[in-house]
Amino acid sequence: MNVHAKPESLEVGYDVPAAVGMNESDIQTPCLILDLDALERNIKKMGDYAKAHGMRHRVHGKMHKSVDVAKLQERIGGSVGVCCQKVSEAEVFARGGIKDVLVSNQVRDPAKIDRLAQLPKLGARIIVCVDDIDNVSELSTAAQKYGTTLECFVEIDCGAGRCGVTTTEDVVAIAKAIDAAPGLKFTGIQAYQGAMQHMDSYEDREAKLDVAIAMVKDAVEGLKAEGLEPELVSGGGTGSYYFESNSGVYNELQCGSYAFMDADYGRILDKDGNRIDQGEWENALFLLTSVMSHAKADKAICDAGLKAQSVDSGLPFVFGRDDVEYIKCSDEHGVISDPNGALKVNDKLRLVPGHCDPTCNVHDWYVGVRNGKVEAVWPVSARGKAY
Amino acid sequence: MNVHAKPESLEVGYDVPAAVGMNESDIQTPCLILDLDALERNIKKMGDYAKAHGMRHRVHGKMHKSVDVAKLQERIGGSVGVCCQKVSEAEVFARGGIKDVLVSNQVRDPAKIDRLAQLPKLGARIIVCVDDIDNVSELSTAAQKYGTTLECFVEIDCGAGRCGVTTTEDVVAIAKAIDAAPGLKFTGIQAYQGAMQHMDSYEDREAKLDVAIAMVKDAVEGLKAEGLEPELVSGGGTGSYYFESNSGVYNELQCGSYAFMDADYGRILDKDGNRIDQGEWENALFLLTSVMSHAKADKAICDAGLKAQSVDSGLPFVFGRDDVEYIKCSDEHGVISDPNGALKVNDKLRLVPGHCDPTCNVHDWYVGVRNGKVEAVWPVSARGKAY
Repeated sequence: MNVHAKPESLEVGYDVPAAVGMNESDIQTPCLILDLDALERNIKKMGDYAKAHGMRHRVHGKMHKSVDVAKLQERIGGSVGVCCQKVSEAEVFARGGIKDVLVSNQVRDPAKIDRLAQLPKLGARIIVCVDDIDNVSELSTAAQKYGTTLECFVEIDCGAGRCGVTTTEDVVAIAKAIDAAPGLKFTGIQAYQGAMQHMDSYEDREAKLDVAIAMVKDAVEGLKAEGLEPELVSGGGTGSYYFESNSGVYNELQCGSYAFMDADYGRILDKDGNRIDQGEWENALFLLTSVMSHAKADKAICDAGLKAQSVDSGLPFVFGRDDVEYIKCSDEHGVISDPNGALKVNDKLRLVPGHCDPTCNVHDWYVGVRNGKVEAVWPVSARGKAY
Repeated sequence: MNVHAKPESLEVGYDVPAAVGMNESDIQTPCLILDLDALERNIKKMGDYAKAHGMRHRVHGKMHKSVDVAKLQERIGGSVGVCCQKVSEAEVFARGGIKDVLVSNQVRDPAKIDRLAQLPKLGARIIVCVDDIDNVSELSTAAQKYGTTLECFVEIDCGAGRCGVTTTEDVVAIAKAIDAAPGLKFTGIQAYQGAMQHMDSYEDREAKLDVAIAMVKDAVEGLKAEGLEPELVSGGGTGSYYFESNSGVYNELQCGSYAFMDADYGRILDKDGNRIDQGEWENALFLLTSVMSHAKADKAICDAGLKAQSVDSGLPFVFGRDDVEYIKCSDEHGVISDPNGALKVNDKLRLVPGHCDPTCNVHDWYVGVRNGKVEAVWPVSARGKAY
């Protein structure tokens, strides 16, 4: 079902927005396009950084949900595997050939635990997070049923306020239970600070990460005292990876958005006060849209509305244009302020989405472009895999 | 590709969230469920209203994007067909057997016009909107190429500020051009006031519709003076249909959200000052979610975040519960305030989404439930059909 047929066999305009070899101007809109040159540069840059800092890079697959992008990250970015958030996503990546898959989330539903426990049979290392000691026996029973090993991270809530325990005492208690449970292996710590990644100021982000690092160091000391030194200490995002890399305690990164960038992330500032989309990372993901009405002189109506993007983190901006602005989003339309009447019907614009993750999740395809030609059409392999 | 296989042949938990006959408690979350009793009552009620007021009801298929729901609306609601917003959606409905399909939008891209002009060959009446006289010859050329007839509505912008012309002079000029163009037929007027549907106050909505009705009446008089009386005058939504029905000039409704309801629409008030989800319409659409972490005593974390819904019109509310509240939404998680510790891991909640249209567009399936059992699993047939 969700293993897509070869793009070449699909109907352009109904099943897919483009075909390989097509001119960029013939792509059907609205659709996601990837600037392959920019994407490859972003991936290589983060890979080089991780390598230079002795960090494993487990790329966040929940951002792009694409086996093809994950494999590109392995090939030119040296990534060790992926993390993702749902069992159904882990299934897509493991079935797609990714050999090291972390579900950076809790899995509690009995049917999902049962599916997860079967995944190591595909030849992939499977890791899952735990924040409740009751979950340990559930996972252990399922792993034993299938004769597999599920590796476990204890999740620390180091500031995001979602899942995760908050005391070293709880970390140690859960790690000991995992260590004692047949079919499970205590492998490490999940400590991703998800609430600070989008804070504008570098110093504000650093202060939040200092707190997280202190919590993680305390937990690691507590675990060592019990003879349970974690093999992996994992976390870090596009707004924080330099802090984890220089912490002396984390040894694995989980960055996602750096590869594509988006409007909301792009606004945050680096150490020198520059937007991170003005040097640190390039915009590689665009929502291509067309003008489809211009009945009012100062407003163009484009074909990318709420069905083509998520506006939870704000509206998109129009890439490379200062003369026009995306000012309003409704179900099917975007309103583009065009005070000089610069746009005409069928003109195409590249929008930088407000938030890449949920925007990618509404599209079935990425259209990779280079030098004005369509070079790749990749399925968003785990689109809609929310279970 | 997008013609889904029979739900029974799919893998529950990977391809689909449920199978027919399953208990509601075994549905994999997050997923959309439909209360079939409530859905059928909503559909019948609107159908009865339209019939009693001599109105055609062309249901808005862009809301649900489902051939199955559209056919239910024909069967028990007496609807005459659908409207939708994109050519690819029109293709799904026409291929699915809907015989009267309006694209209530402009179609300007040459490839899309070419596809649209072929659709009448499927045996469906195809209508499209026009707001620019230059579009007339484009549509005419394509219809002649395939020997088909494209029917056309002239679109009036009666307050939404998106597509559409704003003067009777423009309406008449475009209608005359359509009437003279081979392969085209001037059929009527599109006049949907999309900007007032969600205003809380009945009187505020009425004032906006009074303006729209005056514009439409003026346009109809102008057309009659040229011997171009429109066969159909179409518009109206869940927040306004009674105004169009009693206007004396509209003869076709285009309501969508009434069938499912959502949190944002539910808040608007009827003539007597009551929320429309407290009597006029029932909540039939729910986002089913499970608690998957409760590491903090007063907060439950559920599995429905931004990948499972659109929050453009606000957060969802928890149906039937006053003791817990959905207070925060991130990519993969919802934070539920649970001050009394009423929830435990794996408890399920029915969320009423903030905005039904873009929420349905992220899901592949509707799970229809009745009396605690899964009775139907319907594909969201036009999901992602944004081209």
